[in-house]
Amino acid sequence: MTTPPLSHLRVLECATFVAGPSCGMTLGQLGAEVLRVDLPQGGSDHQRWPLATSGASLYWANLNKGKRSVTIDYRLPAGRELVVELATRPGAGSGVFVDNLVGRSALTRAELLERRSDMITMRILGFPDGRPAVDYTVNAAVGVPYMTGLAGSGEPVNHVLPAWDLLTGAMAAVGLLAAVTQRQQTGEGADLQIALADVALSGVGALGWLAEALQDGPRAAHGNHVFGSFGTDFATSDGERVMIVALTQGQWQALCDVTGTGAVFDALESALGTDLREESARYELRETIGSILRPWFSARPIAEVREDLDRARVLWGPYRTMSDAAALARQDATSVASEVEQPGIGRMLATTIPVRWNGGTSAPAPAPVLGADTEQVLAEELGLSGAEIGALLQRGVVGVPGRAEAS
Amino acid sequence: MTTPPLSHLRVLECATFVAGPSCGMTLGQLGAEVLRVDLPQGGSDHQRWPLATSGASLYWANLNKGKRSVTIDYRLPAGRELVVELATRPGAGSGVFVDNLVGRSALTRAELLERRSDMITMRILGFPDGRPAVDYTVNAAVGVPYMTGLAGSGEPVNHVLPAWDLLTGAMAAVGLLAAVTQRQQTGEGADLQIALADVALSGVGALGWLAEALQDGPRAAHGNHVFGSFGTDFATSDGERVMIVALTQGQWQALCDVTGTGAVFDALESALGTDLREESARYELRETIGSILRPWFSARPIAEVREDLDRARVLWGPYRTMSDAAALARQDATSVASEVEQPGIGRMLATTIPVRWNGGTSAPAPAPVLGADTEQVLAEELGLSGAEIGALLQRGVVGVPGRAEAS
Repeated sequence: MTTPPLSHLRVLECATFVAGPSCGMTLGQLGAEVLRVDLPQGGSDHQRWPLATSGASLYWANLNKGKRSVTIDYRLPAGRELVVELATRPGAGSGVFVDNLVGRSALTRAELLERRSDMITMRILGFPDGRPAVDYTVNAAVGVPYMTGLAGSGEPVNHVLPAWDLLTGAMAAVGLLAAVTQRQQTGEGADLQIALADVALSGVGALGWLAEALQDGPRAAHGNHVFGSFGTDFATSDGERVMIVALTQGQWQALCDVTGTGAVFDALESALGTDLREESARYELRETIGSILRPWFSARPIAEVREDLDRARVLWGPYRTMSDAAALARQDATSVASEVEQPGIGRMLATTIPVRWNGGTSAPAPAPVLGADTEQVLAEELGLSGAEIGALLQRGVVGVPGRAEAS
Repeated sequence: MTTPPLSHLRVLECATFVAGPSCGMTLGQLGAEVLRVDLPQGGSDHQRWPLATSGASLYWANLNKGKRSVTIDYRLPAGRELVVELATRPGAGSGVFVDNLVGRSALTRAELLERRSDMITMRILGFPDGRPAVDYTVNAAVGVPYMTGLAGSGEPVNHVLPAWDLLTGAMAAVGLLAAVTQRQQTGEGADLQIALADVALSGVGALGWLAEALQDGPRAAHGNHVFGSFGTDFATSDGERVMIVALTQGQWQALCDVTGTGAVFDALESALGTDLREESARYELRETIGSILRPWFSARPIAEVREDLDRARVLWGPYRTMSDAAALARQDATSVASEVEQPGIGRMLATTIPVRWNGGTSAPAPAPVLGADTEQVLAEELGLSGAEIGALLQRGVVGVPGRAEAS
């Protein structure tokens, strides 16, 4: 990345867990200055697992990379006033506020508009009416767990990846940037809102799954097969496992060629009067195809499978443990993952935004220590004197790292 | 939404499957004009499952809502020239190009820059070096399937939701919009790239999972439990199922109160010398907590469970089938889902973008019929005469709906 595209943007973030913080981090990784505001003792996500051996949260450190951290007790009137001032700072790229607060703590758009009429505000919610929800509950409610896992068990399987959280963060960033482009042209702000439950519904809708379910009833879980085409997993002779996918005719042909099963499938097509060049036919015969291919994989170690599949241009991937994936990423100098020196943790493998700009990636930055930027931000952004900051500290309106840990 | 924020933007999309098309659709749902270019016979995703009873693809119809469809054989020199002309159309909001083509078909950034020096181009890839990958293979390679599903099985469980595809589409839109804000300020274009494999690595990195795995080794699958806190599923007396989550102290207290188990957990804390107000303690004792809570759920039908949990403000959600989720969304007038009249399919439940603008959602628009806008776009955007368009049709350089079906 030559010049970070969002270096003109200054975002105030008052959010916890995954969606809000990942939205702010994404904007920061594109060059925006992102101030995260927390209560002096930290947000409810500050100690979230996984933890480093030091006890610090690897989760928090990785969702807040590159931000500045300011701690303010926004439940107090004086603290709330500071947050309003920071949110409405002057400047063409300021006046961008993201939060997921509800109830009494939430700053209203109206009180921000009193100070700055072109505010862009994004509220991240569970349900659009403000009721709480988290990834695990919206995923269950939208029908995905009953489609996941082994065929026939009837038991729902939750996804482990908080996919809706991550997607909510990215879509919130999309909404904010759309509003920024508009404000650059018209001078007008925007009142934005995104709810996890809407993201999940919109997501399954985009795949055609809502329309499908109304037409055909719920789709049953079908193990690791790829719906509507051919794709499944195979074990190798040395206990490794690979995911094989044949979406296109070329991929299917490559798979038949490398496994030497072309004549078997030709004969099968004749016997059953089907055409396996069609994706739908491959899906319908997925168990049969899998059974015919399986011996080829189970007779070979992963090294041989890898070489043969790559040479034949089969679409495939190995199953890895997270540890193996991390170790490989650490070795790869072109990867979006690299080590940072994280305060409170030490050397830590961290990742940057996956958007590559002019051929390169930005390096990941470490996360701040909670409250590390409070004094500087109050002085430089709000023009407070050392004595004023000292008084706020003493009254517990704001926090700094030493104090936060002591309290 | 009052004025769509991206109505100044005109995007040319030359992409298939989920990531590219969902990127374009997202921009379109915020007001951009999105032209999707396909080969006259359709892209490899045009017949992708799930299908409507008419045989048309519900998948395609839902990933291409609100776009215009132009069919051009860009493998032919004359077709390629037309795509270059459309991609480099004049206008401050034009010159935005998204594709996932590789090999000979791919338009190079260099040939676009010859016509327009401020092009914003986004290439969507499997791996950053251009090798193919799909959601199923990158998910396996990044370690998530070995963390998913029942404890102890050791078998990987694929997610069914193509989460990395959807996230790639959203992050591609973020990158494009960041570039648009920059171009509005500096007049400079941008060379952008995003790879599915990078998105997956960046995503698990953001959650702290790479750092965790290097420190602690791979995390084992642990069923439907929420990692690092308390959350799991329970069956009700009438065969329904609910997901219960207690991340905060308040949520945990509400759960103890409504189930009348407070004294049991108090005694358990004394007996084991632990403090269940701590998330980590709840996670460590997740099986025990689940066993103590289970009888309360299994003794009650879902209607009673729902009423009690809502009254007590427990964080929970029902498990639903996709059909039930769709039926509920269809009834809800405030939902992001509503019915559209989809050409080739009929009434179809479709969803719009989950970003709510000034309190409202935009209505979903139907997808175009393949090639429906070819003639109008060639005439209006490129100034071609009817005779010129007729000649291109005859030579098979471009397509229109009738021809496409006949070929």
